[in-house]
Amino acid sequence: MTLENISCQKSFGGWHKRYRHRSSTLNCDMVFAVYLPPQIEQGEKLPVLYWLSGLSCTDENFMQKAGAQRMAAELGIVIVAPDTSPRGAEVPGDPDGGWDFGHGAGFYLNATQAPWAQHYRMHDYVVHELPALIEASFPVSEQRGISGHSMGGHGALVCALRNPGRYRSVSAFAPICNPMTVPWGEKAFSRYLGEERSQWRAWDASALLAEATERLSILIDQGDRDDFLITQLKPETLEAAAKASSHPLTLRRQAGYDHSYYFIASFIEDHLRHHALALGRSVD
Amino acid sequence: MTLENISCQKSFGGWHKRYRHRSSTLNCDMVFAVYLPPQIEQGEKLPVLYWLSGLSCTDENFMQKAGAQRMAAELGIVIVAPDTSPRGAEVPGDPDGGWDFGHGAGFYLNATQAPWAQHYRMHDYVVHELPALIEASFPVSEQRGISGHSMGGHGALVCALRNPGRYRSVSAFAPICNPMTVPWGEKAFSRYLGEERSQWRAWDASALLAEATERLSILIDQGDRDDFLITQLKPETLEAAAKASSHPLTLRRQAGYDHSYYFIASFIEDHLRHHALALGRSVD
Repeated sequence: MTLENISCQKSFGGWHKRYRHRSSTLNCDMVFAVYLPPQIEQGEKLPVLYWLSGLSCTDENFMQKAGAQRMAAELGIVIVAPDTSPRGAEVPGDPDGGWDFGHGAGFYLNATQAPWAQHYRMHDYVVHELPALIEASFPVSEQRGISGHSMGGHGALVCALRNPGRYRSVSAFAPICNPMTVPWGEKAFSRYLGEERSQWRAWDASALLAEATERLSILIDQGDRDDFLITQLKPETLEAAAKASSHPLTLRRQAGYDHSYYFIASFIEDHLRHHALALGRSVD
Repeated sequence: MTLENISCQKSFGGWHKRYRHRSSTLNCDMVFAVYLPPQIEQGEKLPVLYWLSGLSCTDENFMQKAGAQRMAAELGIVIVAPDTSPRGAEVPGDPDGGWDFGHGAGFYLNATQAPWAQHYRMHDYVVHELPALIEASFPVSEQRGISGHSMGGHGALVCALRNPGRYRSVSAFAPICNPMTVPWGEKAFSRYLGEERSQWRAWDASALLAEATERLSILIDQGDRDDFLITQLKPETLEAAAKASSHPLTLRRQAGYDHSYYFIASFIEDHLRHHALALGRSVD
């Protein structure tokens, strides 16, 4: 578990750092980013919010565009942003060269099918290997929150729902709520998991929510001018599942907003406050 | 003066829009971005902050990475971000393919030398053509502020110092303070303006400040871990000029910060408040 620091930049009194390491889960080298707020130097162990980005992103998009560091610095929350898939020449990508499968499109699941299963195990990387590495390397607590956008919103919901007790808080921006039934999900799941659709339910937030035992309060923001809203995201499916099982879900439909980081930046403060409350940070 | 709207995205209750238009000053098509805060729909004419970006940037870098929209929305300030040079196949670029001259490196001056003089007139574009277009097309007042980063910080200072009365406020992040004497400036000025160095003084903030008649208070932030600080930026030259002429200058050396947008984002709120005060907006 050797971490190679590849950059370090001061931001809002704290530090934005990028690291490379060998992932034994993914069988490749990985890069992640971490934002360490100024409180990190005061000896207190801080909670960590894991941020999962969407299709075609890396660790950089969120850190550069979401404007999250300001509130993370104020609230004393560490943010960790992994990449969105295994990477490198040894990792097979989309044979058709698509941007919605393979590199940049790991879908935060554990693939079962050849040739994907050897590398595409982003669920185990995000839920187990990366937190173990973070908690061994930085002065952080084991209090974890998780959030993400689009494919990463799906990832955040699925990671939280599959692992009761592991996260104190969860939220998402424009998540893919019912991947089993939409083109992005069908393409990825049929390859990573095979054609047997009964196997897909374990990676679908709407299916998982219907059977959830833990009552973790979910915050979701969704723009109503999002081009992917109807065809790919389907928040109404998650809303129905939450209603049927009386699961606490706050789904805010934001008038006029699209799928971009301008949308995320507009509401990231609310999400950080949502996580801070559950993670025991003081919220004014 | 026809504006073609090429995108529109909601951001912090306002709108981030991009436009293409034919520039008669630059003899090419140009793209700029504008952030219209929510107050724009309330009938009041709002002031405009012009943001000039640095080498190799376009209108997009600042809007995506600086996180300025939050405070612009709170304070009711319009932000306009032009491109950093004339663009297009008809515009000659650096014959050596460099990123510090030509496309993306207009240096906010009016070139006098062939073949540059036909297109590279960014000063007149930023100071005259673009504000005329903005003030004719949007419900804004004629109260203007100007700011920028690196080459754009140089541009903001020079535009304000050359045009007394035209701007109510000026600030800069890590500006090139004395371009006459540094490699970036020498390369650009010798080509755009010719080898006669006496002609360069009219485009050098430190030289202009020494002779300034208007006492416009300048706010500058400069990171002390900026890789370009000593070789290219030279804030001590501007500081000396301000001291010699008793010009109001607040130069803040920010410990640990580099030249990046992480630095800009950390202090953009202070700059927006500086401009808001001078532009007559209520600052809590």
